[in-house]
Amino acid sequence: MMNIPSIADMLIAHERIKPHIHRTPVLTSRVIDELAGAELFFKCENLQKAGAFKVRGASNAVFGLSDTEAARGVATHSSGNHGTCLSYAAGRRGIPCTVVMPRTAPQAKKDAVRGYGGKVVECEPSTTSREAVFAEVVAETGAEFVHPYNDARVIAGQGTCSKELIEQVDGLDAVIAPIGGGGMVSGTCLTLSQLAPSIKVYAAEPEQADDAYRSFKAGYIIADDAPNTVADGLKVPLKDLTWHFVSRHVTDILTASEEDIVDAMKLIWKRMKIVMEPSSAVPLATILKNRDVFAGKRIGVIVTGGNVDLDKLPWQ
Amino acid sequence: MMNIPSIADMLIAHERIKPHIHRTPVLTSRVIDELAGAELFFKCENLQKAGAFKVRGASNAVFGLSDTEAARGVATHSSGNHGTCLSYAAGRRGIPCTVVMPRTAPQAKKDAVRGYGGKVVECEPSTTSREAVFAEVVAETGAEFVHPYNDARVIAGQGTCSKELIEQVDGLDAVIAPIGGGGMVSGTCLTLSQLAPSIKVYAAEPEQADDAYRSFKAGYIIADDAPNTVADGLKVPLKDLTWHFVSRHVTDILTASEEDIVDAMKLIWKRMKIVMEPSSAVPLATILKNRDVFAGKRIGVIVTGGNVDLDKLPWQ
Repeated sequence: MMNIPSIADMLIAHERIKPHIHRTPVLTSRVIDELAGAELFFKCENLQKAGAFKVRGASNAVFGLSDTEAARGVATHSSGNHGTCLSYAAGRRGIPCTVVMPRTAPQAKKDAVRGYGGKVVECEPSTTSREAVFAEVVAETGAEFVHPYNDARVIAGQGTCSKELIEQVDGLDAVIAPIGGGGMVSGTCLTLSQLAPSIKVYAAEPEQADDAYRSFKAGYIIADDAPNTVADGLKVPLKDLTWHFVSRHVTDILTASEEDIVDAMKLIWKRMKIVMEPSSAVPLATILKNRDVFAGKRIGVIVTGGNVDLDKLPWQ
Repeated sequence: MMNIPSIADMLIAHERIKPHIHRTPVLTSRVIDELAGAELFFKCENLQKAGAFKVRGASNAVFGLSDTEAARGVATHSSGNHGTCLSYAAGRRGIPCTVVMPRTAPQAKKDAVRGYGGKVVECEPSTTSREAVFAEVVAETGAEFVHPYNDARVIAGQGTCSKELIEQVDGLDAVIAPIGGGGMVSGTCLTLSQLAPSIKVYAAEPEQADDAYRSFKAGYIIADDAPNTVADGLKVPLKDLTWHFVSRHVTDILTASEEDIVDAMKLIWKRMKIVMEPSSAVPLATILKNRDVFAGKRIGVIVTGGNVDLDKLPWQ
């Protein structure tokens, strides 16, 4: 049976993680509003600790452990922001953190985990190798596994983002977030369905990694075979717990082409003066292509992260 | 005789311009603090309307005009942020704005002025041509000249930035800002010398455009011959009004090499996830090179603007 997080879990999570996270600002741009024909409120999790919203869920998991559990440390497999954020949270609590990562993962991602005090254990770039190496790590250390998104503690933590957003902005009609594994979208559904049920939740996905879109339309989870997109944070599939929230509470999933994602990313950098990841540009890309859906509305847009390689920008 | 702005002028300016500007956020970075050995509070004017602090002074000048004066419009010569910001402010008031610019100025700067409704009049890239063309514009239109920095209204407007900063952050020991013509530094001196005289004011300048540094050491204004720096907003010389403030209230002027400026810029982009200009990186570059001056102190750092060509980043 699934452990489905409740709204109380989200409220507890917010109190628990407040000392370890930023209450990130909400930014607006008159020019982008004019292009969109709507009022957009960008919740800037790229300005979050460790550069990503994932520090919310990771901190909730780490600081919710008993002292005995915590002493054995935490572990995960992730070549993205979750590994970095779990390392950050573990560092704040002063406990060990191990991240299993393909040896082919970018050096910058390995350095980021180590920068916060975490340990990187390399595996071959295959699911078989990752699972074997990860099982070994857990057997050796007894570390608590914190899944990047299919975890009630993580989803409750991610839900704190839209709690802050509705405290910061009145009268929102909808909130839109990128969808990969669905952790942020699930947290958003958890919070808004309980605290502000009139606010619709939209998810935005790259056309070239549209497994959530196809799952949503089909009514069951479909995994992509080999997704390839500039929005590299969004390649992972939904799992049972995120599917629970997505299938029940999301109004629609919209998709964007690679070109539209890069254009939207550059537009945000240029107009809003913030550094954010390609994944974070997918919501604006879909808004600009679906003006009829959002016309005249007040829309919260979750900017999920800012960890990008400044030497390899996608418009160059 | 010079028209020296008073602290009352600054307070009036703040009330006047509040509807037209952002109260910009103050951001921090634990990693940068560790590198600096100090606590740094970045006042993010790159997130300001039109992408630069200069909208403060320009708005104060524009909204302080009588209706009769305003009807004739405003004019300036600037190939930088002041032209864009004056156009923004004039657009908000619905009055004409003319910006004289060398025909060789970047297309993006001309487009920015026009994007807010201003008119660009081109001159040859020489002081003689600029002055002749500008005189013609004023003779034809009767427009009010708003100098980019040597103007009491502009300095009073720039002073509102550090008023906000000391409302946002307690117990600052010093504030540091880049210095070109000295408008922001003068506004900072105006505000802090009256409202918080225990806070020291530092200015930061590129080694390759160090006229303010040499003027400060000599005790009189020295202009650079042909300054050449990546921090292209800082090539202009001090004038009598800004010299008044700089010579009286600045504790020291520190300089940074081109390489250190670019490194500091990239560090801020990478760690703080904000897009800012090379000019805005000069303060951090000098802080990292003068750790003894700032050790353990709480320092406000003015991030002056975010208008940068994303296709031509200086580390590429």
